[in-house]
Amino acid sequence: MQTLIVAAPPSPTSLTARLLAAAEDELVSTGHDVDVIDLAAIDWDPVVRPGDYGLSAITGPVGTHAAQAIAAGTLDPTIARHQELLRGAELIVFMFPLWWFGMPAILKGWVDRVYTQGFAFGLDDAAGRTRKYGDGGLAGKRGLVITSAGDRETSFARRGVNGGIDELLFPITHGIFFYTGTAPLEPLTVLGVDTPVWAGADDAEAKVRKRLAGVTDEAPIPYRRMLADYDGDRVLRPELAPGREDLAVHRADR
Amino acid sequence: MQTLIVAAPPSPTSLTARLLAAAEDELVSTGHDVDVIDLAAIDWDPVVRPGDYGLSAITGPVGTHAAQAIAAGTLDPTIARHQELLRGAELIVFMFPLWWFGMPAILKGWVDRVYTQGFAFGLDDAAGRTRKYGDGGLAGKRGLVITSAGDRETSFARRGVNGGIDELLFPITHGIFFYTGTAPLEPLTVLGVDTPVWAGADDAEAKVRKRLAGVTDEAPIPYRRMLADYDGDRVLRPELAPGREDLAVHRADR
Repeated sequence: MQTLIVAAPPSPTSLTARLLAAAEDELVSTGHDVDVIDLAAIDWDPVVRPGDYGLSAITGPVGTHAAQAIAAGTLDPTIARHQELLRGAELIVFMFPLWWFGMPAILKGWVDRVYTQGFAFGLDDAAGRTRKYGDGGLAGKRGLVITSAGDRETSFARRGVNGGIDELLFPITHGIFFYTGTAPLEPLTVLGVDTPVWAGADDAEAKVRKRLAGVTDEAPIPYRRMLADYDGDRVLRPELAPGREDLAVHRADR
Repeated sequence: MQTLIVAAPPSPTSLTARLLAAAEDELVSTGHDVDVIDLAAIDWDPVVRPGDYGLSAITGPVGTHAAQAIAAGTLDPTIARHQELLRGAELIVFMFPLWWFGMPAILKGWVDRVYTQGFAFGLDDAAGRTRKYGDGGLAGKRGLVITSAGDRETSFARRGVNGGIDELLFPITHGIFFYTGTAPLEPLTVLGVDTPVWAGADDAEAKVRKRLAGVTDEAPIPYRRMLADYDGDRVLRPELAPGREDLAVHRADR
Protein backbone atom coordinates (compact mmCIF):
# COMPACT_ATOMS: atom_id res chain seq x y z
CA MET A 1 0.00 0.00 0.00
CA GLN A 2 1.36 3.41 -0.93
CA THR A 3 1.68 5.25 2.38
CA LEU A 4 2.37 8.89 3.17
CA ILE A 5 3.52 9.64 6.72
CA VAL A 6 3.44 13.29 7.74
CA ALA A 7 5.22 13.68 11.06
CA ALA A 8 5.95 16.48 13.52
CA PRO A 9 8.68 15.22 15.86
CA PRO A 10 9.72 18.02 18.27
CA SER A 11 13.32 16.76 18.02
CA PRO A 12 15.32 13.89 16.53
CA THR A 13 15.46 12.23 19.95
CA SER A 14 11.73 12.57 20.70
CA LEU A 15 9.28 9.71 21.12
CA THR A 16 7.58 10.81 17.90
CA ALA A 17 10.88 10.52 16.02
CA ARG A 18 11.38 7.02 17.42
CA LEU A 19 7.84 5.93 16.53
CA LEU A 20 8.26 7.45 13.06
CA ALA A 21 11.38 5.37 12.43
CA ALA A 22 9.58 2.24 13.68
CA ALA A 23 6.53 2.95 11.52
CA GLU A 24 8.59 3.46 8.39
CA ASP A 25 10.65 0.35 9.06
CA GLU A 26 7.59 -1.80 9.73
CA LEU A 27 5.77 -0.65 6.60
CA VAL A 28 8.79 -1.02 4.32
CA SER A 29 9.69 -4.43 5.71
CA THR A 30 6.15 -5.68 5.08
CA GLY A 31 6.24 -4.60 1.45
CA HIS A 32 4.58 -1.19 1.49
CA ASP A 33 5.88 1.85 -0.37
CA VAL A 34 6.41 4.72 2.04
CA ASP A 35 6.93 8.45 1.64
CA VAL A 36 7.84 10.36 4.79
CA ILE A 37 7.45 14.10 5.29
CA ASP A 38 9.36 15.00 8.45
CA LEU A 39 8.17 18.56 8.88
CA ALA A 40 10.97 19.58 11.24
CA ALA A 41 13.62 18.12 8.95
CA ILE A 42 12.34 20.12 5.95
CA ASP A 43 11.81 23.23 8.12
CA TRP A 44 8.17 23.47 6.99
CA ASP A 45 6.65 26.95 7.14
CA PRO A 46 3.12 26.50 8.57
CA VAL A 47 1.80 29.95 7.67
CA VAL A 48 -0.55 30.54 4.73
CA ARG A 49 0.96 33.36 2.64
CA PRO A 50 0.03 35.10 -0.64
CA GLY A 51 2.84 33.24 -2.42
CA ASP A 52 0.98 29.97 -1.82
CA TYR A 53 -1.39 31.11 -4.53
CA GLY A 54 1.11 32.95 -6.72
CA LEU A 55 -0.13 36.28 -5.38
CA SER A 56 1.49 39.32 -3.79
CA ALA A 57 -1.48 39.91 -1.48
CA ILE A 58 -4.50 38.02 -0.17
CA THR A 59 -7.56 40.05 -1.12
CA GLY A 60 -10.36 37.49 -0.86
CA PRO A 61 -11.15 34.17 0.82
CA VAL A 62 -8.04 31.98 0.82
CA GLY A 63 -10.08 29.02 -0.44
CA THR A 64 -11.11 30.94 -3.54
CA HIS A 65 -7.53 32.04 -4.16
CA ALA A 66 -6.38 28.42 -3.85
CA ALA A 67 -8.98 27.06 -6.25
CA GLN A 68 -8.11 29.78 -8.77
CA ALA A 69 -4.38 29.08 -8.40
CA ILE A 70 -4.94 25.38 -9.07
CA ALA A 71 -6.97 26.17 -12.17
CA ALA A 72 -4.34 28.64 -13.39
CA GLY A 73 -1.36 26.44 -12.49
CA THR A 74 0.06 29.11 -10.19
CA LEU A 75 -0.06 27.17 -6.93
CA ASP A 76 3.25 27.24 -5.04
CA PRO A 77 5.30 24.29 -6.42
CA THR A 78 6.10 22.92 -2.95
CA ILE A 79 2.42 22.75 -2.09
CA ALA A 80 1.68 21.17 -5.46
CA ARG A 81 4.36 18.53 -4.80
CA HIS A 82 2.89 17.69 -1.40
CA GLN A 83 -0.55 17.44 -2.99
CA GLU A 84 0.92 14.97 -5.49
CA LEU A 85 2.22 12.84 -2.62
CA LEU A 86 -1.26 12.90 -1.07
CA ARG A 87 -2.89 12.05 -4.38
CA GLY A 88 -0.67 9.00 -4.77
CA ALA A 89 -1.18 7.74 -1.22
CA GLU A 90 -3.57 4.95 -0.27
CA LEU A 91 -2.87 5.46 3.45
CA ILE A 92 -2.18 8.84 5.08
CA VAL A 93 -0.62 8.81 8.57
CA PHE A 94 -0.33 11.89 10.81
CA MET A 95 2.22 11.39 13.63
CA PHE A 96 2.60 14.00 16.35
CA PRO A 97 2.73 14.69 20.06
CA LEU A 98 -0.62 16.05 21.30
CA TRP A 99 -0.02 19.71 22.16
CA TRP A 100 -2.93 21.61 23.67
CA PHE A 101 -5.22 18.76 22.64
CA GLY A 102 -4.38 19.13 18.97
CA MET A 103 -1.63 19.08 16.38
CA PRO A 104 1.56 21.10 16.89
CA ALA A 105 1.37 24.21 14.69
CA ILE A 106 3.89 22.87 12.18
CA LEU A 107 1.50 20.02 11.29
CA LYS A 108 -1.68 22.08 11.55
CA GLY A 109 -0.12 24.47 9.08
CA TRP A 110 0.76 21.64 6.73
CA VAL A 111 -2.96 20.84 6.58
CA ASP A 112 -3.89 24.54 6.35
CA ARG A 113 -1.58 25.01 3.34
CA VAL A 114 -1.72 21.66 1.50
CA TYR A 115 -5.39 20.64 1.96
CA THR A 116 -6.57 23.46 -0.28
CA GLN A 117 -9.97 24.16 -1.71
CA GLY A 118 -10.13 22.79 -5.24
CA PHE A 119 -7.92 19.89 -4.22
CA ALA A 120 -9.09 18.36 -0.92
CA PHE A 121 -12.53 19.98 -0.69
CA GLY A 122 -14.86 22.39 -2.45
CA LEU A 123 -15.53 19.89 -5.24
CA ASP A 124 -18.93 18.99 -6.67
CA ASP A 125 -20.22 15.67 -7.92
CA ALA A 126 -21.91 15.18 -11.30
CA ALA A 127 -25.24 16.21 -9.77
CA GLY A 128 -23.76 19.48 -8.48
CA ARG A 129 -23.73 18.42 -4.84
CA THR A 130 -20.76 19.29 -2.60
CA ARG A 131 -18.49 16.28 -2.11
CA LYS A 132 -17.72 16.15 1.61
CA TYR A 133 -18.07 13.86 4.64
CA GLY A 134 -17.57 10.47 3.04
CA ASP A 135 -16.55 11.93 -0.31
CA GLY A 136 -14.12 14.61 -1.42
CA GLY A 137 -10.79 15.17 -3.10
CA LEU A 138 -9.13 12.42 -1.06
CA ALA A 139 -11.84 9.78 -1.45
CA GLY A 140 -10.75 6.14 -1.48
CA LYS A 141 -7.84 6.65 0.91
CA ARG A 142 -7.44 5.63 4.56
CA GLY A 143 -6.23 7.92 7.32
CA LEU A 144 -4.54 7.14 10.63
CA VAL A 145 -3.63 9.42 13.54
CA ILE A 146 -0.73 8.29 15.74
CA THR A 147 -0.31 10.59 18.73
CA SER A 148 1.15 10.64 22.22
CA ALA A 149 0.34 12.64 25.33
CA GLY A 150 1.80 13.08 28.77
CA ASP A 151 -1.28 12.76 30.92
CA ARG A 152 -2.47 9.41 32.23
CA GLU A 153 -4.88 7.22 30.23
CA THR A 154 -7.81 7.66 32.63
CA SER A 155 -7.72 11.45 32.11
CA PHE A 156 -8.50 10.76 28.43
CA ALA A 157 -11.27 8.22 29.12
CA ARG A 158 -14.81 9.12 28.06
CA ARG A 159 -15.47 10.67 31.49
CA GLY A 160 -11.86 11.72 32.07
CA VAL A 161 -11.07 15.32 32.94
CA ASN A 162 -9.42 16.08 29.57
CA GLY A 163 -12.41 14.89 27.57
CA GLY A 164 -12.47 11.57 25.74
CA ILE A 165 -9.59 11.16 23.32
CA ASP A 166 -11.99 10.16 20.49
CA GLU A 167 -13.86 13.44 20.94
CA LEU A 168 -10.66 15.49 21.22
CA LEU A 169 -9.41 14.01 17.94
CA PHE A 170 -12.81 14.35 16.20
CA PRO A 171 -11.73 17.58 14.44
CA ILE A 172 -8.99 15.50 12.76
CA THR A 173 -10.60 12.10 12.18
CA HIS A 174 -13.97 13.56 11.14
CA GLY A 175 -13.12 17.17 10.28
CA ILE A 176 -10.01 16.56 8.16
CA PHE A 177 -10.00 12.89 7.10
CA PHE A 178 -13.69 12.07 6.70
CA TYR A 179 -14.51 15.59 5.47
CA THR A 180 -12.22 15.10 2.47
CA GLY A 181 -13.38 11.55 1.73
CA THR A 182 -10.58 9.70 3.53
CA ALA A 183 -11.77 6.72 5.58
CA PRO A 184 -10.41 7.32 9.11
CA LEU A 185 -9.08 4.42 11.16
CA GLU A 186 -9.32 4.44 14.96
CA PRO A 187 -6.49 6.66 16.27
CA LEU A 188 -3.47 5.01 17.86
CA THR A 189 -2.65 6.77 21.12
CA VAL A 190 0.31 6.47 23.47
CA LEU A 191 -0.69 8.03 26.79
CA GLY A 192 0.94 8.58 30.16
CA VAL A 193 4.28 9.54 28.65
CA ASP A 194 5.08 12.21 31.27
CA THR A 195 5.18 9.89 34.27
CA PRO A 196 8.44 10.58 36.10
CA VAL A 197 10.29 7.50 34.87
CA TRP A 198 8.56 6.41 31.69
CA ALA A 199 9.63 2.97 30.56
CA GLY A 200 6.99 2.56 27.88
CA ALA A 201 8.86 3.47 24.69
CA ASP A 202 9.52 -0.16 23.72
CA ASP A 203 5.88 -1.04 24.26
CA ALA A 204 4.79 2.01 22.28
CA GLU A 205 7.03 1.00 19.39
CA ALA A 206 5.65 -2.54 19.49
CA LYS A 207 2.11 -1.17 19.50
CA VAL A 208 2.81 0.93 16.39
CA ARG A 209 4.44 -2.00 14.57
CA LYS A 210 1.60 -4.39 15.40
CA ARG A 211 -1.03 -1.91 14.33
CA LEU A 212 0.63 -1.10 11.02
CA ALA A 213 1.17 -4.80 10.26
CA GLY A 214 -2.62 -5.17 10.12
CA VAL A 215 -3.58 -1.77 8.77
CA THR A 216 -4.68 -3.02 5.35
CA ASP A 217 -7.50 -5.11 6.81
CA GLU A 218 -8.88 -2.70 9.40
CA ALA A 219 -12.45 -1.47 9.23
CA PRO A 220 -12.58 2.34 9.38
CA ILE A 221 -14.64 4.37 11.86
CA PRO A 222 -18.24 4.15 10.59
CA TYR A 223 -18.99 7.87 10.44
CA ARG A 224 -22.34 8.67 8.90
CA ARG A 225 -22.48 9.95 5.31
CA MET A 226 -23.70 13.45 4.64
CA LEU A 227 -26.01 12.75 1.74
CA ALA A 228 -27.64 9.68 3.28
CA ASP A 229 -27.94 10.50 6.98
CA TYR A 230 -28.41 14.29 7.25
CA ASP A 231 -31.27 16.49 6.10
CA GLY A 232 -31.13 19.47 3.76
CA ASP A 233 -29.93 21.69 6.62
CA ARG A 234 -27.10 19.20 7.29
CA VAL A 235 -28.66 18.11 10.58
CA LEU A 236 -28.68 14.42 11.52
CA ARG A 237 -32.04 12.84 10.69
CA PRO A 238 -34.15 12.58 13.87
CA GLU A 239 -34.53 8.79 13.71
CA LEU A 240 -30.73 8.33 13.99
CA ALA A 241 -29.33 8.42 17.58
CA PRO A 242 -32.67 9.98 18.64
CA GLY A 243 -32.55 12.64 21.33
CA ARG A 244 -28.76 12.66 21.61
CA GLU A 245 -26.49 15.65 20.97
CA ASP A 246 -22.96 14.36 21.52
CA LEU A 247 -20.23 13.98 18.89
CA ALA A 248 -20.65 10.19 18.85
CA VAL A 249 -24.04 10.58 17.13
CA HIS A 250 -22.00 10.92 13.94
CA ARG A 251 -20.80 7.31 14.29
CA ALA A 252 -23.12 4.52 13.20
CA ASP A 253 -21.67 2.25 15.93
CA ARG A 254 -22.19 4.43 19.00
CA MET B 1 -10.38 45.83 32.19
CA GLN B 2 -6.90 45.10 30.86
CA THR B 3 -7.50 43.10 27.67
CA LEU B 4 -5.14 41.17 25.43
CA ILE B 5 -6.43 40.34 21.95
CA VAL B 6 -4.42 37.76 20.01
CA ALA B 7 -5.65 37.67 16.43
CA ALA B 8 -4.90 35.71 13.28
CA PRO B 9 -6.42 37.64 10.38
CA PRO B 10 -5.56 35.92 7.06
CA SER B 11 -5.22 39.35 5.45
CA PRO B 12 -5.77 43.04 6.27
CA THR B 13 -9.05 42.95 4.31
CA SER B 14 -10.39 39.79 5.95
CA LEU B 15 -13.47 39.55 8.14
CA THR B 16 -11.21 38.77 11.11
CA ALA B 17 -9.26 41.99 10.52
CA ARG B 18 -12.50 43.94 10.42
CA LEU B 19 -13.84 42.33 13.59
CA LEU B 20 -10.47 42.93 15.28
CA ALA B 21 -10.65 46.64 14.53
CA ALA B 22 -14.23 46.76 15.81
CA ALA B 23 -13.33 44.86 18.98
CA GLU B 24 -10.39 47.13 19.77
CA ASP B 25 -12.45 50.25 19.09
CA GLU B 26 -15.35 49.06 21.22
CA LEU B 27 -13.15 48.14 24.17
CA VAL B 28 -11.08 51.35 24.06
CA SER B 29 -14.15 53.55 23.69
CA THR B 30 -15.75 51.93 26.73
CA GLY B 31 -12.71 52.59 28.89
CA HIS B 32 -10.75 49.34 28.73
CA ASP B 33 -6.99 49.12 28.20
CA VAL B 34 -6.24 46.97 25.17
CA ASP B 35 -3.13 45.28 23.86
CA VAL B 36 -3.40 43.72 20.41
CA ILE B 37 -1.11 41.04 19.02
CA ASP B 38 -1.83 40.81 15.29
CA LEU B 39 0.15 37.68 14.50
CA ALA B 40 0.30 38.30 10.75
CA ALA B 41 1.45 41.88 11.23
CA ILE B 42 4.35 40.80 13.46
CA ASP B 43 5.13 37.81 11.19
CA TRP B 44 4.88 35.42 14.15
CA ASP B 45 6.86 32.20 13.78
CA PRO B 46 4.58 29.42 15.09
CA VAL B 47 7.24 26.70 15.36
CA VAL B 48 8.77 25.65 18.69
CA ARG B 49 12.55 25.78 18.27
CA PRO B 50 15.56 25.20 20.59
CA GLY B 51 16.16 28.96 20.76
CA ASP B 52 12.84 29.34 22.59
CA TYR B 53 14.62 27.88 25.59
CA GLY B 54 18.06 29.36 24.98
CA LEU B 55 19.29 26.02 23.64
CA SER B 56 21.02 24.86 20.49
CA ALA B 57 19.12 21.55 20.46
CA ILE B 58 16.03 20.03 22.04
CA THR B 59 17.14 16.92 23.89
CA GLY B 60 14.28 16.30 26.33
CA PRO B 61 10.58 17.12 26.74
CA VAL B 62 9.94 20.69 25.58
CA GLY B 63 7.95 21.40 28.74
CA THR B 64 10.93 20.56 30.91
CA HIS B 65 13.20 22.73 28.77
CA ALA B 66 10.72 25.60 29.09
CA ALA B 67 10.42 25.35 32.87
CA GLN B 68 14.21 25.25 33.18
CA ALA B 69 14.61 28.24 30.87
CA ILE B 70 12.16 30.27 32.96
CA ALA B 71 14.03 29.37 36.13
CA ALA B 72 17.38 30.24 34.53
CA GLY B 73 16.12 33.41 32.82
CA THR B 74 17.08 32.07 29.38
CA LEU B 75 13.63 32.02 27.82
CA ASP B 76 13.53 33.75 24.42
CA PRO B 77 12.86 37.46 25.13
CA THR B 78 9.98 37.66 22.65
CA ILE B 79 8.20 34.80 24.37
CA ALA B 80 8.90 36.35 27.77
CA ARG B 81 7.40 39.63 26.55
CA HIS B 82 4.24 37.91 25.33
CA GLN B 83 3.98 36.09 28.66
CA GLU B 84 4.17 39.50 30.39
CA LEU B 85 1.25 40.70 28.27
CA LEU B 86 -0.71 37.62 29.30
CA ARG B 87 0.23 38.07 32.94
CA GLY B 88 -1.10 41.63 32.90
CA ALA B 89 -4.35 40.78 31.13
CA GLU B 90 -7.69 40.38 32.87
CA LEU B 91 -9.40 39.30 29.63
CA ILE B 92 -7.73 37.23 26.90
CA VAL B 93 -9.43 37.18 23.47
CA PHE B 94 -8.49 34.82 20.65
CA MET B 95 -9.80 35.99 17.24
CA PHE B 96 -9.45 33.77 14.19
CA PRO B 97 -11.19 32.18 11.24
CA LEU B 98 -11.98 28.52 11.95
CA TRP B 99 -9.67 26.48 9.72
CA TRP B 100 -10.10 22.72 9.77
CA PHE B 101 -12.24 23.11 12.90
CA GLY B 102 -9.46 24.76 14.85
CA MET B 103 -7.05 27.67 15.02
CA PRO B 104 -4.93 28.62 12.00
CA ALA B 105 -1.38 27.39 12.62
CA ILE B 106 -0.05 30.88 13.31
CA LEU B 107 -2.29 31.14 16.38
CA LYS B 108 -1.93 27.51 17.46
CA GLY B 109 1.81 28.08 17.41
CA TRP B 110 1.45 31.21 19.52
CA VAL B 111 -0.16 29.04 22.19
CA ASP B 112 2.40 26.23 21.66
CA ARG B 113 5.29 28.67 22.21
CA VAL B 114 3.94 31.19 24.75
CA TYR B 115 1.80 28.97 27.02
CA THR B 116 4.87 27.20 28.38
CA GLN B 117 5.23 24.80 31.24
CA GLY B 118 6.35 26.71 34.32
CA PHE B 119 4.28 29.70 33.23
CA ALA B 120 0.79 28.62 32.14
CA PHE B 121 0.78 25.08 33.53
CA GLY B 122 2.91 22.55 35.39
CA LEU B 123 2.61 24.52 38.63
CA ASP B 124 1.78 23.05 42.05
CA ASP B 125 -0.27 24.53 44.87
CA ALA B 126 0.95 24.73 48.47
CA ALA B 127 -0.24 21.17 49.08
CA GLY B 128 1.79 19.88 46.14
CA ARG B 129 -1.22 19.28 43.91
CA THR B 130 -1.07 20.15 40.19
CA ARG B 131 -2.87 23.42 39.48
CA LYS B 132 -5.01 22.79 36.42
CA TYR B 133 -8.65 22.86 35.27
CA GLY B 134 -9.98 25.77 37.26
CA ASP B 135 -6.55 26.80 38.50
CA GLY B 136 -3.16 27.36 36.87
CA GLY B 137 -0.71 30.01 35.82
CA LEU B 138 -3.46 32.16 34.30
CA ALA B 139 -5.97 31.90 37.15
CA GLY B 140 -8.27 34.86 37.76
CA LYS B 141 -8.48 35.86 34.09
CA ARG B 142 -11.35 35.49 31.61
CA GLY B 143 -11.01 34.06 28.11
CA LEU B 144 -13.10 34.62 24.99
CA VAL B 145 -12.95 32.94 21.58
CA ILE B 146 -14.25 34.95 18.62
CA THR B 147 -14.27 32.87 15.46
CA SER B 148 -15.95 32.70 12.06
CA ALA B 149 -16.65 29.86 9.67
CA GLY B 150 -18.00 29.47 6.17
CA ASP B 151 -20.50 26.70 6.66
CA ARG B 152 -24.11 27.38 7.61
CA GLU B 153 -25.19 27.61 11.26
CA THR B 154 -27.24 24.40 11.21
CA SER B 155 -24.15 22.39 10.22
CA PHE B 156 -22.61 23.49 13.55
CA ALA B 157 -25.73 22.74 15.63
CA ARG B 158 -25.51 19.99 18.25
CA ARG B 159 -26.68 17.43 15.70
CA GLY B 160 -25.18 19.24 12.70
CA VAL B 161 -22.86 17.37 10.36
CA ASN B 162 -19.73 19.26 11.48
CA GLY B 163 -20.28 18.48 15.14
CA GLY B 164 -21.58 21.05 17.62
CA ILE B 165 -19.51 24.22 17.71
CA ASP B 166 -19.23 24.02 21.53
CA GLU B 167 -17.68 20.56 21.24
CA LEU B 168 -15.39 21.57 18.37
CA LEU B 169 -14.08 24.49 20.44
CA PHE B 170 -13.79 22.42 23.66
CA PRO B 171 -10.02 21.89 23.13
CA ILE B 172 -9.67 25.69 23.35
CA THR B 173 -12.29 26.73 25.91
CA HIS B 174 -11.60 23.78 28.21
CA GLY B 175 -8.18 22.55 27.08
CA ILE B 176 -6.39 25.91 26.86
CA PHE B 177 -8.41 28.47 28.88
CA PHE B 178 -9.88 26.39 31.71
CA TYR B 179 -6.81 24.13 31.89
CA THR B 180 -4.62 27.11 32.78
CA GLY B 181 -7.11 28.63 35.23
CA THR B 182 -8.70 31.15 32.86
CA ALA B 183 -12.50 31.35 33.17
CA PRO B 184 -13.82 30.77 29.63
CA LEU B 185 -16.79 32.75 28.33
CA GLU B 186 -19.17 31.26 25.78
CA PRO B 187 -17.50 31.54 22.34
CA LEU B 188 -18.77 34.18 19.93
CA THR B 189 -19.23 32.62 16.50
CA VAL B 190 -20.01 34.14 13.12
CA LEU B 191 -21.21 31.35 10.86
CA GLY B 192 -22.40 31.06 7.26
CA VAL B 193 -19.75 33.42 5.95
CA ASP B 194 -19.17 31.53 2.69
CA THR B 195 -22.66 31.96 1.30
CA PRO B 196 -22.30 33.28 -2.26
CA VAL B 197 -23.23 36.87 -1.47
CA TRP B 198 -22.60 37.38 2.22
CA ALA B 199 -24.08 40.57 3.57
CA GLY B 200 -23.53 39.80 7.24
CA ALA B 201 -20.34 41.73 8.04
CA ASP B 202 -22.19 44.70 9.55
CA ASP B 203 -24.26 42.37 11.71
CA ALA B 204 -21.15 40.47 12.76
CA GLU B 205 -19.43 43.68 13.76
CA ALA B 206 -22.48 44.75 15.76
CA LYS B 207 -22.57 41.35 17.45
CA VAL B 208 -18.92 41.68 18.50
CA ARG B 209 -19.43 45.23 19.80
CA LYS B 210 -22.54 44.32 21.77
CA ARG B 211 -20.89 41.28 23.30
CA LEU B 212 -17.76 43.16 24.36
CA ALA B 213 -19.82 45.99 25.84
CA GLY B 214 -21.15 43.52 28.41
CA VAL B 215 -18.13 41.25 28.78
CA THR B 216 -17.28 42.36 32.31
CA ASP B 217 -20.56 41.06 33.72
CA GLU B 218 -20.81 37.74 31.90
CA ALA B 219 -20.91 34.47 33.79
CA PRO B 220 -18.26 32.06 32.47
CA ILE B 221 -18.94 28.52 31.28
CA PRO B 222 -19.41 26.46 34.47
CA TYR B 223 -16.84 23.75 33.76
CA ARG B 224 -16.32 21.37 36.65
CA ARG B 225 -13.23 21.74 38.83
CA MET B 226 -10.65 19.00 38.87
CA LEU B 227 -10.07 18.73 42.58
CA ALA B 228 -13.75 18.85 43.54
CA ASP B 229 -15.52 16.88 40.83
CA TYR B 230 -13.08 14.19 39.62
CA ASP B 231 -11.65 11.19 41.43
CA GLY B 232 -7.98 10.34 41.98
CA ASP B 233 -7.77 8.88 38.46
CA ARG B 234 -9.12 12.21 37.11
CA VAL B 235 -12.43 10.59 36.10
CA LEU B 236 -15.69 12.45 36.71
CA ARG B 237 -17.36 11.23 39.90
CA PRO B 238 -20.15 8.76 39.04
CA GLU B 239 -22.91 10.79 40.69
CA LEU B 240 -22.26 13.73 38.29
CA ALA B 241 -23.97 13.46 34.87
CA PRO B 242 -24.50 9.76 35.63
CA GLY B 243 -24.21 7.33 32.73
CA ARG B 244 -23.21 9.98 30.20
CA GLU B 245 -19.94 10.06 28.22
CA ASP B 246 -20.15 13.22 26.11
CA LEU B 247 -17.98 16.33 26.43
CA ALA B 248 -20.84 18.29 28.01
CA VAL B 249 -20.53 16.18 31.19
CA HIS B 250 -17.69 18.56 32.08
CA ARG B 251 -20.16 21.45 32.32
CA ALA B 252 -22.24 21.80 35.49
CA ASP B 253 -25.12 23.27 33.44
CA ARG B 254 -25.58 20.54 30.84
